[in-house]
Amino acid sequence: MTFSMNQKVLFKHCDPAGIVFYPRYFEMINDCVEAFFAECGTPFEVLLKSAGVPTVQIAATFTAPSRHGDQLVLALDVLRIGASSLDLEINADADAGAARRFTANSTLVYLGVAGRPTKWPDALRLSFTSHLRSTP
Amino acid sequence: MTFSMNQKVLFKHCDPAGIVFYPRYFEMINDCVEAFFAECGTPFEVLLKSAGVPTVQIAATFTAPSRHGDQLVLALDVLRIGASSLDLEINADADAGAARRFTANSTLVYLGVAGRPTKWPDALRLSFTSHLRSTP
Amino acid sequence: MTFSMNQKVLFKHCDPAGIVFYPRYFEMINDCVEAFFAECGTPFEVLLKSAGVPTVQIAATFTAPSRHGDQLVLALDVLRIGASSLDLEINADADAGAARRFTANSTLVYLGVAGRPTKWPDALRLSFTSHLRSTP
Amino acid sequence: MTFSMNQKVLFKHCDPAGIVFYPRYFEMINDCVEAFFAECGTPFEVLLKSAGVPTVQIAATFTAPSRHGDQLVLALDVLRIGASSLDLEINADADAGAARRFTANSTLVYLGVAGRPTKWPDALRLSFTSHLRSTP
Repeated sequence: MTFSMNQKVLFKHCDPAGIVFYPRYFEMINDCVEAFFAECGTPFEVLLKSAGVPTVQIAATFTAPSRHGDQLVLALDVLRIGASSLDLEINADADAGAARRFTANSTLVYLGVAGRPTKWPDALRLSFTSHLRSTP
Repeated sequence: MTFSMNQKVLFKHCDPAGIVFYPRYFEMINDCVEAFFAECGTPFEVLLKSAGVPTVQIAATFTAPSRHGDQLVLALDVLRIGASSLDLEINADADAGAARRFTANSTLVYLGVAGRPTKWPDALRLSFTSHLRSTP
Repeated sequence: MTFSMNQKVLFKHCDPAGIVFYPRYFEMINDCVEAFFAECGTPFEVLLKSAGVPTVQIAATFTAPSRHGDQLVLALDVLRIGASSLDLEINADADAGAARRFTANSTLVYLGVAGRPTKWPDALRLSFTSHLRSTP
Repeated sequence: MTFSMNQKVLFKHCDPAGIVFYPRYFEMINDCVEAFFAECGTPFEVLLKSAGVPTVQIAATFTAPSRHGDQLVLALDVLRIGASSLDLEINADADAGAARRFTANSTLVYLGVAGRPTKWPDALRLSFTSHLRSTP
């Protein structure tokens, strides 16, 4: 089941060309991942008290520019659940899905108290599973 | 003696109107204060390991817009040194001082390990004194 | 009638001390003003096609730190409606209003096509009036 | 010839874990590309008056975290010069090159007045050539 987050393009996101400044897209992506973890039952503000979930790699293709006022929907799917890693794909569309704005793929790693890759807690792993793309 | 920091207006600072988005000015101000503490011999990355220096109030007047490519100079003066507080004024000019862009006044507070207002360390206080506006 | 906007404190807002980095508060304030104009019937993405509403001054007092996960409510009141200016007060609270986090006062100016201060359009002025603090 | 830019890790770049928040890395990368174009004789503030150079794709691997105070060097190489595109690689190191922090690959496209992909101006193309990785 795809997780989705609405994000209107605001004044702060836009550059002198009137389109989203791409580092702001990565903030949106981070917000989406944060909302996804909250949906999975473990909000970042709880998880990060004793752990870390750094993004270790991310790749994005910006298909078309987004303008101030555009209503974006970021759709997040889990592609792969590793022992301590998580591969995500996040697509952003406007116009009710008719216009792709970007596609991003990222890998997160779960770090335990000692800052070392650690197995995902069972509850989180189970939640991730329900968002695996192959899950109907 | 006024402390100054050069800051070119970059693409990332500018909004759809092609001028600096004002929250970015506050990032510049924070960078200037950070550079000032380094100049005073106690860089933030050292100071903040065991203390905090939150900004508790700030007021700014944006006299004229700044455009992409403008060469700003931020000039910082110490206005008052309290037991655990510090009042600063930061002015930003372009065109070699001919064009004022903003004036900001802020108050910082020094918090010790327990998170409580604490007397400034002597070395820092001495450095601040040399940047008091009344000092020739 | 006070206009209000909910804003959870997210990971991106927080600094190494685990509290909101104050320039991020000014982004929240800008978002709140943007949402207020949309509520007033003239969203920024429409208004800014032919006009500007720069913030010409702003002052904020940060009463207490906000932490990751805090549920803030930003409450905006109109204090004064000038011919081409607007004075606002924005207060942010957590814990359902029990904990003030900051108070900010700002002045916006309405600039017409020529970039000069211009009278507010009647429809906007009327909407502002309904948010004047003195209005019951 | 590699183009390089120094970037100290500042307070504003860091998250509650005390390391660089990765969207901030993309701001650094954008600053580096902007400085590179200035070095190539066509600063963004001139180029963007009549053209655009959006980033159409970018991929980054974050090898190790960067901490507040780290002195980074971003090194930019041109990998390929297309008719209207440019492939770049940007590597960031700390400790005088001993510690890789991230590797990023991006593609920019040159858009002319009409917003369509347009051949790079000859002067820019020539400058890019001198920064091709294979050039000794």
